[in-house]
Amino acid sequence: MYITQSLHRALQQHPERTAVHFGDRQQSFREFADRVARLAGALQALGMQPGDRVAMLAHNSDRYLEYQMAVLWGGGVLTPCNTRWSTTEILYALNDSGSALLLVDDAFQDRVAHFRRESTVLREVIHCGDEPTPPGMHSYEALLAQAAPVPDALRRGDDLAGIFYTGGTTGFPKGVMLSHANLCSSAMALHSDELAREGGTYLHVAPMFHLADLGISMVQWLVAQTHVILPAFEPRSLLDTLERHRVTVVPLVPTMIQMLVDHQAIREPRDLSSLQTIIYGSSPISEALVERVMAFLPDVSFMQVYGMTELAPIATINPGYYHSADGRKLGKLPSAGRAGRCMELRIADPEGREVPRGTVGEVLVRGPNVMLGYWNRPELTAEALRGGWMHTGDGAWMDEDGFIYIVDRLKDMIISGGENVYSGEVESALARHPAVAASAVIGIPDERWGEAVHAVVVLKPGMQPTAGELIAHCLTLIAGYKCPRSLVFAEQLPLSAVGKVLKTALREPFWQGRSRNVA
Amino acid sequence: MYITQSLHRALQQHPERTAVHFGDRQQSFREFADRVARLAGALQALGMQPGDRVAMLAHNSDRYLEYQMAVLWGGGVLTPCNTRWSTTEILYALNDSGSALLLVDDAFQDRVAHFRRESTVLREVIHCGDEPTPPGMHSYEALLAQAAPVPDALRRGDDLAGIFYTGGTTGFPKGVMLSHANLCSSAMALHSDELAREGGTYLHVAPMFHLADLGISMVQWLVAQTHVILPAFEPRSLLDTLERHRVTVVPLVPTMIQMLVDHQAIREPRDLSSLQTIIYGSSPISEALVERVMAFLPDVSFMQVYGMTELAPIATINPGYYHSADGRKLGKLPSAGRAGRCMELRIADPEGREVPRGTVGEVLVRGPNVMLGYWNRPELTAEALRGGWMHTGDGAWMDEDGFIYIVDRLKDMIISGGENVYSGEVESALARHPAVAASAVIGIPDERWGEAVHAVVVLKPGMQPTAGELIAHCLTLIAGYKCPRSLVFAEQLPLSAVGKVLKTALREPFWQGRSRNVA
Repeated sequence: MYITQSLHRALQQHPERTAVHFGDRQQSFREFADRVARLAGALQALGMQPGDRVAMLAHNSDRYLEYQMAVLWGGGVLTPCNTRWSTTEILYALNDSGSALLLVDDAFQDRVAHFRRESTVLREVIHCGDEPTPPGMHSYEALLAQAAPVPDALRRGDDLAGIFYTGGTTGFPKGVMLSHANLCSSAMALHSDELAREGGTYLHVAPMFHLADLGISMVQWLVAQTHVILPAFEPRSLLDTLERHRVTVVPLVPTMIQMLVDHQAIREPRDLSSLQTIIYGSSPISEALVERVMAFLPDVSFMQVYGMTELAPIATINPGYYHSADGRKLGKLPSAGRAGRCMELRIADPEGREVPRGTVGEVLVRGPNVMLGYWNRPELTAEALRGGWMHTGDGAWMDEDGFIYIVDRLKDMIISGGENVYSGEVESALARHPAVAASAVIGIPDERWGEAVHAVVVLKPGMQPTAGELIAHCLTLIAGYKCPRSLVFAEQLPLSAVGKVLKTALREPFWQGRSRNVA
Repeated sequence: MYITQSLHRALQQHPERTAVHFGDRQQSFREFADRVARLAGALQALGMQPGDRVAMLAHNSDRYLEYQMAVLWGGGVLTPCNTRWSTTEILYALNDSGSALLLVDDAFQDRVAHFRRESTVLREVIHCGDEPTPPGMHSYEALLAQAAPVPDALRRGDDLAGIFYTGGTTGFPKGVMLSHANLCSSAMALHSDELAREGGTYLHVAPMFHLADLGISMVQWLVAQTHVILPAFEPRSLLDTLERHRVTVVPLVPTMIQMLVDHQAIREPRDLSSLQTIIYGSSPISEALVERVMAFLPDVSFMQVYGMTELAPIATINPGYYHSADGRKLGKLPSAGRAGRCMELRIADPEGREVPRGTVGEVLVRGPNVMLGYWNRPELTAEALRGGWMHTGDGAWMDEDGFIYIVDRLKDMIISGGENVYSGEVESALARHPAVAASAVIGIPDERWGEAVHAVVVLKPGMQPTAGELIAHCLTLIAGYKCPRSLVFAEQLPLSAVGKVLKTALREPFWQGRSRNVA
């Protein structure tokens, strides 16, 4: 199973269907496949050999989609760069991956001089923006116009498809090596829960460099859906696009869903009847939020996914049914779901032994979606994949029906006075106070308890409770040792590109010069 | 991806759900998994090493399902024997596969003495029938009662899962080697077209030794459906079972569907509302037959699959929509469907080049479902898999939407006076005569034309047209050179275990001592 197979199938079955819309540009699958075969030819002409890494540093566009398919079509390996990273971090990823070819758009072309100076490997740069091509770079469209289409290199399932750098929330970046089969397996698992139907339209709104988007869009490739691409999340343009392009599937994180229903644009008259599924991840969704969305979009179905880059990226799925009015009665909404259709899941103790249902342990995953390893990091790989299972580092418990409930990153777990405190539990308690919009709970150094529970809280507009009031509120809901010892207010929480709270950033000022017990 | 993974998932998510019903016996997934782990232990205690072949010669039962999972759980390889084969043919398969262990039921225990005498490899025989165990054999239930459960051997995706002997219609048997990943891939492709939903019930009615049943039931394993097992197809017991067990999916061939709607039992009052899908293969279904079924089962959906053992077994799928009243207007009902979700399809000339849409060529398939090869037959393997594509030997054309229409086995194609005659086209013409129940068209030796078109016709009860009348009927529909030169009547056509017409048997008397141009 290799990724471009889905493009061959789309070309055979739906050549005239629209493959991609971006701004004013659109292409059929026939046109898209032709451009992909020519871009692959251009990359080969610039020296791309089988297995060579090709980087891209750009915002979302139709050319990002072409890059994804063309590098693979030509036999190369994707190394998409995180647009939020510093120049130093990106340079690290370029050098570490050994990417000799780089595509940049208008927003990032200024960084090329620095990369050229500092990189040990960079050889050719392709400018894929819409402004005039700067000197010393190849023009994307000129390359395409001159290139001859090449045949698909037809990689094998076990061949490396991409190196996806991760670590934004946990420090030093690691290159996660995913094979064609890894990505296809996650896609088949998602598809088997009816995420995407033949002939639908998928909206890219998360950053396309991130596997959360690339991984989910693999499903849309399987069923030859139309790709509509937005540069970024903004409630009104999202709603406009849903309506204009009759979008059927959109991935969002709960924070974005919340912003959407809080925005006045949702109350404007619009035909959003095409939307079938909102797929979300990174945290569960509250029943209240589901109900608010249903008020505007009564026929929409929700699907929660949980996973990580190393799982390409799916581990568990909580399908639409458990979000529906009937299904919600079963109480599975707070769950991240059950093992995907081609994978196994285990909640284990530190020795890898399965723990009883209801007991918190580490989430382990085994299956065809588990990464090949970390690029150039054999020791990290051996550690993560010990015993044949991917060790996610996430803490969770499993119920009698095989549903899992994520309690925390194990490294986010706070050990205070010898007791384990799961920050998720404290955040849930805070969330039940009417003044709290969001919160992040971390452990900070404490002479007496080792770590103390500390909360950073974002208030709803116009609300002004004291820290003491919020701590007292928590005491009515959870054990005293779990309640925040200290609590501060903030305008907003630091978020990663896909909307995860960057707890590392919150912890950093407290822990400088010290080390925590957890990695 | 390995097959027993689905049993682990079922055990984790639905331990108390019924796994299997057979006669008066039933088991939950928990009980089933326990018996599987103990049977695997018993097989290992009898000497089964990783990769060892274990044969079974038996009619359908719950023990057949246990055999399928336990051999794989224990690290062995399945070699199910065709119950319709002669003792000589089965002996060939036992020796060729090197099966030292054999399970037999009451119906076949008499053959064991012969196998023991003649086999070079057979060492241990397990009696899995319900009558007393004959001397010299192990009792299945006694073995299970004594055995300790062993852990799953956890084969890798590329490991051999089974050797499936094929060739009933084409002469000397070949052992098709299928890996765990081959079978799982076909299952995922079927599942992605919504064949099976969580919590449904599947009825085994085709012989369980055949991959048509085993391959399709892999999908039911993916979603932890209940397996209900019938010994064989019989209209009334089928209908009784559908009702009693609230069956949701049943595989049938069009001949069986026809027998079902022709049987008086279908007119008896029965609640068949549970039935969601009839999956069928081996030939297209007529619009008239779809409509007749719909009259009795208005909510049932049809799915056609086309494939072969070498494809584990799926190549194409024609899903429910094209069978519905709306979908039928698109005219795709005579098609075998489009490429499954993880495979590629090509209609090619003898050099492997794709032919234009609408032109007949050979069906080639590439993907993770393509067999590892033929056991001990490297030359046959190289020939079948040349260029990386499985050469099916079937002739078909593809329409503009990627749907294929099977015209014939290429070896069934008749070359008469230099013209290609597809027997399927002639059979379709005959089928349109009101007196014709079924027909088979073959090429027979002809001094002048090389081959001449010959028809064997089964008439509907009470009908008595002459051969000349039927030939004249054909002349009104197809070119003269395609019409039968000779036509005989028969009571019935020789059928293989899954209802395919055995054209080899019809051709044999005409071709003794001669050789055809095609293999």
